[in-house]
Amino acid sequence: MEDGKLKELLSDMSVEEKIDQLLQVTGYYFEEEGVVTGPNNQAGFMQQEVDLAGSVLGIAGADKLIGIQKKYMEKQPHQIPLLFMADIINGFRTIFPIPLAQGCSFDPEIAKIGAEVAAKESAVSGLHLTFSPMVDLVRDPRWGRVMESTGEDPYLNSEFARAMVKGYQGDGELSQPYKIAACVKHFAGYGAPMAGREYNTVELSNRTLFDSYLPSYQAAIDAGCATAMTSFNTLDRIPSTANKWLMRDILRTHMGFEGVLISDWAAIEEIIHHGVAEGKKQAARLALEAGVDIDMMTTCYCRNIKELLDENKIDSALLDEAVYRVLVLKNRLGLFENPFKDANSQWEEDVILSKEHRKLARQAAAQTMVLLKNEDQILPLKKEGQKIAFIGPHADSPYLMGVWSIFGRMEDVITIKEGVKRAGVTEASFYRGAPVVSDLTKLELHSEVREQILSDIKASKALLKEALLAAQDSDIVVLALGEYPAQSGEAASRTNLHLDPLQLELLRQVKKINPNIVTVLLNGRPLIIEDVLADSKAVLEAWLPGTEGGNAIADILFGDVTPSGKLSMSFPRTVGQIPIYYNDFPTGRPVLGKKEKYLSQYIDCPNEPLFPFGYGLSYTAFEISPITLSHKILSGDGSIQASVCVRNTGHREGAQVIQLYIKDEVGSVSRPNRELKGFRKVYLKPGEEAEVVFDINTSMLKFYDNTMQYVCEPGSFRLFIGADSATENSVSFTVE
Amino acid sequence: MEDGKLKELLSDMSVEEKIDQLLQVTGYYFEEEGVVTGPNNQAGFMQQEVDLAGSVLGIAGADKLIGIQKKYMEKQPHQIPLLFMADIINGFRTIFPIPLAQGCSFDPEIAKIGAEVAAKESAVSGLHLTFSPMVDLVRDPRWGRVMESTGEDPYLNSEFARAMVKGYQGDGELSQPYKIAACVKHFAGYGAPMAGREYNTVELSNRTLFDSYLPSYQAAIDAGCATAMTSFNTLDRIPSTANKWLMRDILRTHMGFEGVLISDWAAIEEIIHHGVAEGKKQAARLALEAGVDIDMMTTCYCRNIKELLDENKIDSALLDEAVYRVLVLKNRLGLFENPFKDANSQWEEDVILSKEHRKLARQAAAQTMVLLKNEDQILPLKKEGQKIAFIGPHADSPYLMGVWSIFGRMEDVITIKEGVKRAGVTEASFYRGAPVVSDLTKLELHSEVREQILSDIKASKALLKEALLAAQDSDIVVLALGEYPAQSGEAASRTNLHLDPLQLELLRQVKKINPNIVTVLLNGRPLIIEDVLADSKAVLEAWLPGTEGGNAIADILFGDVTPSGKLSMSFPRTVGQIPIYYNDFPTGRPVLGKKEKYLSQYIDCPNEPLFPFGYGLSYTAFEISPITLSHKILSGDGSIQASVCVRNTGHREGAQVIQLYIKDEVGSVSRPNRELKGFRKVYLKPGEEAEVVFDINTSMLKFYDNTMQYVCEPGSFRLFIGADSATENSVSFTVE
Repeated sequence: MEDGKLKELLSDMSVEEKIDQLLQVTGYYFEEEGVVTGPNNQAGFMQQEVDLAGSVLGIAGADKLIGIQKKYMEKQPHQIPLLFMADIINGFRTIFPIPLAQGCSFDPEIAKIGAEVAAKESAVSGLHLTFSPMVDLVRDPRWGRVMESTGEDPYLNSEFARAMVKGYQGDGELSQPYKIAACVKHFAGYGAPMAGREYNTVELSNRTLFDSYLPSYQAAIDAGCATAMTSFNTLDRIPSTANKWLMRDILRTHMGFEGVLISDWAAIEEIIHHGVAEGKKQAARLALEAGVDIDMMTTCYCRNIKELLDENKIDSALLDEAVYRVLVLKNRLGLFENPFKDANSQWEEDVILSKEHRKLARQAAAQTMVLLKNEDQILPLKKEGQKIAFIGPHADSPYLMGVWSIFGRMEDVITIKEGVKRAGVTEASFYRGAPVVSDLTKLELHSEVREQILSDIKASKALLKEALLAAQDSDIVVLALGEYPAQSGEAASRTNLHLDPLQLELLRQVKKINPNIVTVLLNGRPLIIEDVLADSKAVLEAWLPGTEGGNAIADILFGDVTPSGKLSMSFPRTVGQIPIYYNDFPTGRPVLGKKEKYLSQYIDCPNEPLFPFGYGLSYTAFEISPITLSHKILSGDGSIQASVCVRNTGHREGAQVIQLYIKDEVGSVSRPNRELKGFRKVYLKPGEEAEVVFDINTSMLKFYDNTMQYVCEPGSFRLFIGADSATENSVSFTVE
Repeated sequence: MEDGKLKELLSDMSVEEKIDQLLQVTGYYFEEEGVVTGPNNQAGFMQQEVDLAGSVLGIAGADKLIGIQKKYMEKQPHQIPLLFMADIINGFRTIFPIPLAQGCSFDPEIAKIGAEVAAKESAVSGLHLTFSPMVDLVRDPRWGRVMESTGEDPYLNSEFARAMVKGYQGDGELSQPYKIAACVKHFAGYGAPMAGREYNTVELSNRTLFDSYLPSYQAAIDAGCATAMTSFNTLDRIPSTANKWLMRDILRTHMGFEGVLISDWAAIEEIIHHGVAEGKKQAARLALEAGVDIDMMTTCYCRNIKELLDENKIDSALLDEAVYRVLVLKNRLGLFENPFKDANSQWEEDVILSKEHRKLARQAAAQTMVLLKNEDQILPLKKEGQKIAFIGPHADSPYLMGVWSIFGRMEDVITIKEGVKRAGVTEASFYRGAPVVSDLTKLELHSEVREQILSDIKASKALLKEALLAAQDSDIVVLALGEYPAQSGEAASRTNLHLDPLQLELLRQVKKINPNIVTVLLNGRPLIIEDVLADSKAVLEAWLPGTEGGNAIADILFGDVTPSGKLSMSFPRTVGQIPIYYNDFPTGRPVLGKKEKYLSQYIDCPNEPLFPFGYGLSYTAFEISPITLSHKILSGDGSIQASVCVRNTGHREGAQVIQLYIKDEVGSVSRPNRELKGFRKVYLKPGEEAEVVFDINTSMLKFYDNTMQYVCEPGSFRLFIGADSATENSVSFTVE
């Protein structure tokens, strides 16, 4: 539809019709099984509101959505189609690894492919938009939702944000086949809740917001992301959803976002709980003034905007602006021409969970796993000639998908047992060993899962006994430990980040009998694993790898794929070190190897994390040469080339992620100890070598100076190139 | 000296002389025993610099300082006397409880008396100034220096800040006898280091800085505090010591501070480590431009200011301004007339550690202890007829003084054993039971203490065995557990806040034998004590109570004093809840008794602390009536009287701290869940009752609104009056 026609349409709509375009309700109002992804509120929409609602969330299925759309359009006075949205975070039905794991691939292409697969499966199921990517910077693993982010680094997150938007939306029109609109979230700062407690207050200086938190949202916007979502938290004590400065001055004017801004679930009404609105009417006014276009799951907009207009408390232009943005989005998706877009049950059969998609998910999963330890080169294991006991709650569990996989199905999941069997391993046996979690308080679980876990808890002694017998009788024990998926994700903050006590007991008991332990961790956040590390010869962080998890784990364990993942978040030694992240700031009293009292340190723990950002081992070995600089001085629009030679000095093919970090030595404000500025994943055969060259220019050295100007300040810089964020391989250069 | 003469003097000084007035060195340069309170740096001052240095820190003693002053004055071209400063935090030689404990008295008079005693002992020892009060707001018990603050509440801290300044300085001239100048520190925000790690980066929004962190500094300034100290941390990434906005716009212009601003130890040089100056010269320039008058223990000022002047990089007015402030301070102290002030060895004998001072310290200590649990009314104990075993590393230890008691002496300390014996307890026995700490890594200890602890560690099994025999043979076991003082205070951050494992083992073993356990905790910060609480019938938080600690503990244990202390900091259940404080902010998804997934909560721990701010039990019982309001509506310059009737319903005389909290229900920004706005300590005999009336006016309801104006916004407020910060006793009122 032409823009002029769209404006005509707008002017022809009644006020009620306009207001309801801004309403989003769950599929529950159209069919009872709509997935609930927020708190049960008593929203209680009336039929006439639902009849005119502009969008719906949480349902999928081609025939179903086609049916709903048809029925809806029959009542729609202006033939404005309904917009179907859903949380497609790490895949629709073919579930990819959780985003935090995807970050560990250090390969944005993996995320782009994942988003393409998700978009394709979603599109044919009738969806038009996914609430993804979540690009919130995360530095506190207590927060369960770190699972949904790509990690602690602004640059890495930006690269992934861009890749995911491109994957969902493609490069052309949103209306093209198999593409859906993306929604960057949660704007802004949601990843920094106090004490890691979900939805808690965020305390950030504007400088930190601009320097560290905004870049990944900016990257998504620059990639053309069609929509954005407000965050649940306050920023500077103002709920994002009511934060006019944040949404208008920063998001729209400063960052150039022109798309639809949607509230998170009930977030407009929650302005009241934050104590910034007296009631729904004020909440509606504040949100509309802030430029929030769609009201997800509250009656704030639909019951109050009319009154606000009648009382002249808001300008009708505010309403028109929001409605127009929604219409533009529908138009960009081509819904006026084809309200069903790609919904097609035949395509569903061809596309969803296709062999090709499974293959891509398997490849992705293997790329995201991080080898943390490999003593005596116990890994890779042998498919023949080794008697291997796979023990643990995840040894044969389908709990390998991140919790936010709302259309994923456990029955599609390749368990580790299946993966190992398919790999043709001859002498493998499988035992549960321990329940996946021994305390179900506050965990919302499907009843059959709950029954299973409860029965495991009851049988835990027998499970342990059986496992120990098997351990005794094996050459190698692979322990598959970790979290149940619902222990991470939204509303799953934990204060204790150790493995469950019964799992730790299993590890300790096995260790006494058989020290040849390979631990595979399946979890949604960095855990505290000093004890696990000490008791295991090898530790593989496999995250929540998705539908093809078991295959991918077998690929890694048996060496069909050489691990190449690198941590996207630091692993603390203890909860007492949190927040801990590599790109922190120098203090006035750095330790630097000194042994004195009055230094910035703990008296009972090193400052360093257990594993730093960017860390990960391989089955082969790499040598990285000292750095060569094309020039020592960078000026104006020029650039410097920094290069290293990487050589595979081991005996297997493998990939190394070469990482570039830069430290601005002196600034008008204190600058981070180092910052990731580039990375390159290099695949090398044994003996092969490659040159890796990074271009350094002043635009990548910019930051907000002491007057909040975004500049590169002249002076001395240190440049690091290595295999993790703690590398010492460095040279200096000067910016003039 | 008249102001005119002072200016004459200034204009008569050479540049070198001026610059050296700004230099502060340790007593080490005058005598070898000067106490070192910062990192050993290779400052290496030259004799001519020391000869003209304006001030000295860390030495005391009348004869000694008189001697140094005389010698100094002989070389001083203008007869400008030397200024003697030292860290007198909780007493000079008569050591009072640590400031965090003093906060628990909820009685600023206690702190005022403590400061008066400290000032008197310091003054006669020749000191002119103490680096106290430290009024930094603290919310993270990992940070060891919470010990030196009065806690987590801006209002409580402000009341104590005021009291301490008045105690040190008195109400009249600084030159009056027995008074010394105070130094409010550390400006600003030092109490919020990231992850509780000493000297670490501080991340605060300006709003939080203004609303929560600045009030206590402001209170000290309003009380006339003569000097202020810069903090080690950065604020908005700029080191405080180089932060012109913070020091000139905020401290001087906005807050009205007119006194001398001193750097913390080597903080000017540390601007370099923060990465905000290339070298000492730039550091000196930044600090002087920021208005830092005294350079503590670096050569930045004394070696660079001349060159900066010669090169026209700074204006000579900057130098003159700083020197003039130092001269004014010396003049206010009357040093031009009497450079020795109160230094007098006869007075030292009369005053220091006098009976009166000991008595005051004992009274103070008893007021600061907090009874956390008292099952079966096991406390108070009986002096006769009960066989009591006192067990634990603190049962007879002199380690009862906060670590920052630089002139305190262990031999002066009344241990628990001594206190109990003096109380006339007939059947008490004493056993060490366990070492005070089992890992000495990174603890700087005097060699004899180290030897003692090492020998305890070696003998730990025998100590335990002996203790268990005694426990078996007793009616009651009093376990005296806790930290060694050097485990808290500056540069003593801990990630693990449990008691030492050997102490916990002692508790567990005793519990098996004798459940009648009274645990007395001696420590410098809130610890994680859920396990201690479960295994003890009574728990008394005695903090580090100072010289008279043993007597005060006996006073409480045996009921000569009824405990009345209230926590000045929340006690977390686990390190994973940190930071946790009562005056936090509402979220959009409060729990409020609901049992749903998508709420602001942990899945493995309650949101609430183990004990909230303001909590503390008594041996007697109090009833607090519902609240009566004089009016329901507050307007303009009016006030409301909120009153309760408090009744001692128990059988002992005792004191209850009646606490007033207010919540602003709706604001232009999210307002704290509640804020302390008043408190009154009420002493009542059994059966006695009293009315407690609080005046409520709009000025106490002010905060920084969404435009950063300091206002009281009309609307609905909830007012709580009760015995701790979790009280539900509340009424509403309205501001028009």
